[in-house]
Amino acid sequence: MADTLGDEARQLINRPVLATLATVAADGSPQVTPLWVELDGDDIVVNTAQGRAKARNVERDQRVAVCVIDPDDPYSVVVVRGTVVEVTTDGADAGIDRLAKKYLGVDTFPNRRPAEVRISVRIRTDRITMQPH
Amino acid sequence: MADTLGDEARQLINRPVLATLATVAADGSPQVTPLWVELDGDDIVVNTAQGRAKARNVERDQRVAVCVIDPDDPYSVVVVRGTVVEVTTDGADAGIDRLAKKYLGVDTFPNRRPAEVRISVRIRTDRITMQPH
Repeated sequence: MADTLGDEARQLINRPVLATLATVAADGSPQVTPLWVELDGDDIVVNTAQGRAKARNVERDQRVAVCVIDPDDPYSVVVVRGTVVEVTTDGADAGIDRLAKKYLGVDTFPNRRPAEVRISVRIRTDRITMQPH
Repeated sequence: MADTLGDEARQLINRPVLATLATVAADGSPQVTPLWVELDGDDIVVNTAQGRAKARNVERDQRVAVCVIDPDDPYSVVVVRGTVVEVTTDGADAGIDRLAKKYLGVDTFPNRRPAEVRISVRIRTDRITMQPH
């Protein structure tokens, strides 16, 4: 059951603000990683490469959490508990370039490694809080 | 076995930069929350109130992760996997006032609720990465 991002949350996520993604490792411990995010409809979409720890984690356990803190206003924070509903290579190369445009202003992701296979990870937002701390 | 924060990480954490704490909920899902942090020796110390979700989580499972993103330089990020080694009311009232001084520049935490019991949560840094994304 999805919760829907409000205007304030959407505006923050649409800015080039780094998010923190939390996943659960194989041993049940939490893992966090800073990463680029974008919206696609009501979902949050992130991009990683096959084999990375966060990719392995979400293939095993689809439950994730995302925190986005406004760097200009630490009282504006979006906290999401979500579920990974799709992991796909389809569109993932275009997706990382789109994120590079958003975050770096360049047309092509510059840190691509030759052997890596990019994957797109779609997160359904199950519970959203605009959270003061 | 603790890993030790380097100078760059310490400098970032010593600034009034909001951190993201990840804990594990009772159902095994990850939970994130933005919060104030400070260093005490080599440990990261946070402050919350008894009964809050993150307080209950760390009493059940001591494994946590912390992410601190420099709001002025998103390529400067500290990621910590850690273990809660102490949860105590001792010094917690003074601790939240110290954090209010660090983050708000005021002598007394202004958002205190009458009935709440503050607790101080000490996190040993087991694995530290200065992480580009």
